[in-house]
Amino acid sequence: MTKPLNSNLNVDALFLGPKSENAVFFREMMDYAVSEHMYWRSGFHPEDSALVTSIDRYEQNYRETLYRTEGILNQLSAKLKDTSIPFFSPRYLGHINGDTLMVSNLAYVMAMMYNPNNCSYEASPTTTDLELESGLDLCRMFGYDPQQAWGHITSGGTVANYEGLWVARNLKTLPLAISQHPETKNLLSHKSQKQLMNISTTEAVDLISELKKQGVFNEIRDMTCRGIGVKPEFLGKLLVPQSKHYSWIKAADIFGIGQENIIPLPVNEHYQTDIAKMREITLSLIEKGEAILAMIAVVGTTEVGAIDRIDEVIKLRQECEERYGASFYIHADAAYAGYACSLLLNEQGKFMEYDELVKHHHELGLIPENINWPKPEIYQSFKALKHVDSITVDPHKMGFIQYSAGAICIKDKRILDLISSHAAYIFESSGVHSDSPTSNRGILGASIMEGSKAGATAAALWAAHRLLPLNINGYGKVIAAGIVTANRLLDKITNMQPIKVEKYQFEMHIMPTPDFHMINFSFKEVGNTSLLNHNALNKRIYELCSYSTGRAYVNDLLTSSTILDYKEYGDIPGYYAEQCGFSYSEWKEVHHIYVLRAAVMTHCLRNEEHFEEYWEQLKSIFVRKLTQIVDEKEKKLHQRLDFDTSFLS
Amino acid sequence: MTKPLNSNLNVDALFLGPKSENAVFFREMMDYAVSEHMYWRSGFHPEDSALVTSIDRYEQNYRETLYRTEGILNQLSAKLKDTSIPFFSPRYLGHINGDTLMVSNLAYVMAMMYNPNNCSYEASPTTTDLELESGLDLCRMFGYDPQQAWGHITSGGTVANYEGLWVARNLKTLPLAISQHPETKNLLSHKSQKQLMNISTTEAVDLISELKKQGVFNEIRDMTCRGIGVKPEFLGKLLVPQSKHYSWIKAADIFGIGQENIIPLPVNEHYQTDIAKMREITLSLIEKGEAILAMIAVVGTTEVGAIDRIDEVIKLRQECEERYGASFYIHADAAYAGYACSLLLNEQGKFMEYDELVKHHHELGLIPENINWPKPEIYQSFKALKHVDSITVDPHKMGFIQYSAGAICIKDKRILDLISSHAAYIFESSGVHSDSPTSNRGILGASIMEGSKAGATAAALWAAHRLLPLNINGYGKVIAAGIVTANRLLDKITNMQPIKVEKYQFEMHIMPTPDFHMINFSFKEVGNTSLLNHNALNKRIYELCSYSTGRAYVNDLLTSSTILDYKEYGDIPGYYAEQCGFSYSEWKEVHHIYVLRAAVMTHCLRNEEHFEEYWEQLKSIFVRKLTQIVDEKEKKLHQRLDFDTSFLS
Repeated sequence: MTKPLNSNLNVDALFLGPKSENAVFFREMMDYAVSEHMYWRSGFHPEDSALVTSIDRYEQNYRETLYRTEGILNQLSAKLKDTSIPFFSPRYLGHINGDTLMVSNLAYVMAMMYNPNNCSYEASPTTTDLELESGLDLCRMFGYDPQQAWGHITSGGTVANYEGLWVARNLKTLPLAISQHPETKNLLSHKSQKQLMNISTTEAVDLISELKKQGVFNEIRDMTCRGIGVKPEFLGKLLVPQSKHYSWIKAADIFGIGQENIIPLPVNEHYQTDIAKMREITLSLIEKGEAILAMIAVVGTTEVGAIDRIDEVIKLRQECEERYGASFYIHADAAYAGYACSLLLNEQGKFMEYDELVKHHHELGLIPENINWPKPEIYQSFKALKHVDSITVDPHKMGFIQYSAGAICIKDKRILDLISSHAAYIFESSGVHSDSPTSNRGILGASIMEGSKAGATAAALWAAHRLLPLNINGYGKVIAAGIVTANRLLDKITNMQPIKVEKYQFEMHIMPTPDFHMINFSFKEVGNTSLLNHNALNKRIYELCSYSTGRAYVNDLLTSSTILDYKEYGDIPGYYAEQCGFSYSEWKEVHHIYVLRAAVMTHCLRNEEHFEEYWEQLKSIFVRKLTQIVDEKEKKLHQRLDFDTSFLS
Repeated sequence: MTKPLNSNLNVDALFLGPKSENAVFFREMMDYAVSEHMYWRSGFHPEDSALVTSIDRYEQNYRETLYRTEGILNQLSAKLKDTSIPFFSPRYLGHINGDTLMVSNLAYVMAMMYNPNNCSYEASPTTTDLELESGLDLCRMFGYDPQQAWGHITSGGTVANYEGLWVARNLKTLPLAISQHPETKNLLSHKSQKQLMNISTTEAVDLISELKKQGVFNEIRDMTCRGIGVKPEFLGKLLVPQSKHYSWIKAADIFGIGQENIIPLPVNEHYQTDIAKMREITLSLIEKGEAILAMIAVVGTTEVGAIDRIDEVIKLRQECEERYGASFYIHADAAYAGYACSLLLNEQGKFMEYDELVKHHHELGLIPENINWPKPEIYQSFKALKHVDSITVDPHKMGFIQYSAGAICIKDKRILDLISSHAAYIFESSGVHSDSPTSNRGILGASIMEGSKAGATAAALWAAHRLLPLNINGYGKVIAAGIVTANRLLDKITNMQPIKVEKYQFEMHIMPTPDFHMINFSFKEVGNTSLLNHNALNKRIYELCSYSTGRAYVNDLLTSSTILDYKEYGDIPGYYAEQCGFSYSEWKEVHHIYVLRAAVMTHCLRNEEHFEEYWEQLKSIFVRKLTQIVDEKEKKLHQRLDFDTSFLS
């Protein structure tokens, strides 16, 4: 009896590893990738005469050109080795970066040499299919119906967010367009203008089919904002969590919506969108007669890893539909945490019930019994993703693919007709009929924001998905390693004794239980009452733990940081300031707090013994960094040069 | 005495080659790239204990995971070998694809393993600098002042076009915003609303500096369309050549301008924008009081390679400014032919005078005396690029970089302030002050459309630019090879005798002298008067010379095709139909003509002897393909199954 292929995936065998442990395998496969392509070239029409002979290759300028190539690569390597960041190491606890999958690096190289362009099928007969297959993998993971849904690769999460907003915006203007055309206005004649602006996504998408049936779709589409331009007053408001990623600020500009039409949704203490306030704002807008262009929910903010309650967003939409007949588009920005959905799917790719899930996590040893992940509300949030209209997810984040690979999943692919176009020169000749089962493959560049794009990215993603199924036995296993490590760190930091350095003592304060595997924390000098000094201390720690004070390569620890301020979050960061021991008046005075930030992505510390050893090392690094800071301070005091911002009270 | 490093670049030593002639070198360098990174990993904190031991590596599931990885790569390789297109071969004469530079492939792999993300400097201290350096290389090539200009890499030409339109659109709304703010309205108080919509780019960009000086820039910026949303009536019209690339159609949708606000500029017989008609349309708009949002000029259309008269566009703008005080933004879409500018620059990177240039081309043997490239007007067009406001150029086209790499160059970087934003979590911590000489490097993601992006692309482009300077001795040499080959093909086809196959005779008809190195042609059956039959014949030839009738790998010749139709070009394609021998009434009846299309990018046929041999081979391939078509036809006639569209009269 053979086990299913992935029942026993070994996480360490997926990455090159912190000491290049898989060097032999990687090198062998790289050689394979390169050789296969080279023989493909030399096997193409062997009868063709050689255009470059060995005599040519020994000419002086030929050798010179090769030497020069080599010299440039030497130079590049020197630059890279000098200033790159060792993301692969457990000593890197910073932004959303870790090691990347061997298989996706190798697949990229393999495909890159063939140089496919997924803009058109003609230029990428292999990799366009791989892109659409990978897109459907993601759709399935989120619970979308693969018969109706569609997913594809974007250059990053930002462009995926743009595409979500693009379809939402064009869809918003469809009903009004329909009502203004003599042949179709009867379709919606029972609706007031206000109602036309509040039609549900489902109803609006069904209208697309209806218009096509009547043969007037193209005409009507030209009457949407696509044809006539944007009129912000007919779009409504864009609701974005206060934690808003700057891609939404850019999006509101780009799509002509106007940044003033963004309504920020306040967050709670956990930096999730505050459900009650979201409801209040939404209902009050509707009651005032304002339409809602789209509601954005975030699954893993890039600032603290917070996961919005998608289920509550869905519930709210239902409530609005039932009470007011008013609906809106929902886009989930799951760029960061989207892949974590795989942890909730069993080996058959089906969502598990919560209790079964927790049991399964424990049994498989993915998440030990003393770690509580996912919390029930996080589970509900992931489970509700299948109800949102589109989802951004970044393979180059928790998909462990190298940069750059974002993706968007769209629940109902009929919506694409609102944004698609075509260039005769590319598509007429693709030989793929638009009604064929693979209708989108011939015309990828016509249904997306970008044009030419690397087919190699699709190969990388496809290979990763084949190796690591999007369930508990594949990606789930790798992502669990980070979650477990983050939770252990959290536990250690919470329970650690203050660090003593000379006459000073430093406590570590961690922000409330994270939803995913990002932890935010800071060092607090015992007795310090100045938030400014606190911020200066932590800024200095960041500097000492980053590229900014020298080569990252010789550093012991690399982390990231952020500033939580009043302007963005109101008084919410004040809770953390209070937790650190600062008074409300001090918070009110300073209105921002500097925190260190670590997305714990390493797969190497899932073994408890390894983790314990690591923690001891980490503590001694903290002591060293703090000692350096104390020394700097003492030196300044000694030299009476303490006119600089002081960070020790 | 040593020669300057690049005086003697050997073009064959730049590419892997059609038979992998540089296999040994490429393999060696690939191994170098991989090894350097591996040792970088293992050299990082050697004192850290091994987390993956050799014992772990011999566990059953570890081996299984590696085998499975290998299996997936085998599968991927099989897929790629089965259906990829051999772009590297001279037998590929299709869309804008050729071999790619070894140095850029190797540099990509090298950098990819470090996985830098050029969104923020913190995640890419090496490659952000390489991106900005490469961007400035391009600015210099076009004649921009590197002190004022700015360039960066985009995911492709489409996104570069978007960014050009983005700055143009936001700039257009700046004067009106200024006039509506109590503190600044006096700045423009002498202007009417119409005049406010017609301000020149230079004047508007200077206003940005003025607003900053007065400390009201942010406030005013919020009053532009970025803040308040688009109002198409205050933007004016977007003038795009009739040859319009579909990225402009998408752009008018995305940016909220509305596709109906695109005004197509008719093309002449050479598919260049018709200068007289452009002038007429522009002046008539201005006289009617319509503003012009932006004028798009194309340097190398993707359909026929036509190059617009940039100098004439600049002249027209001057005329409008002088006569009417009305100005507009100009963006050049030089995605395809932009790099050809390098052919006009001497070894010091300076534009040569025309006569000197032609002499130099002949002396260096880049372009033989019997080939006339560039024509004086094409030369003038390239030379005028330095006056346009922004330029799209695709390294993944004539930069010979693998996909995907587009780029945009902006003449005056102050304009970026109109689109830039920032995310506290990324930029606050970058440690790079905004007034430092490298001010843009810390905040790349805040000044561009995209967010996360592969630093490896920057490494690839940087390395290519170092190996191949952007002048006559670097890129010029490689691009010249394609131009020369295209011109020789043109000459051969023009002068060839009809091909006889059984009782049929076929002539080849080529479209008028191309501006760059794309040639469009078709086969005409002598005596055939039906354009429909002609189209069917050439469509069938395309099918037989493409992936669509079987594995491209076993094909003798691969080409591309397009349809030139009335809807897009009016009666212009009728000239070519006439040239092929079809009457005007026949053209009027059918209104489209199917042509084969070849961007001649191969560097392998610059040697005349090689070319002659290739031409003989090509002719016999034509005969074979036509014979197959005649046989298919005869068979059908024989079987009396000739109810299908007949393509032989």
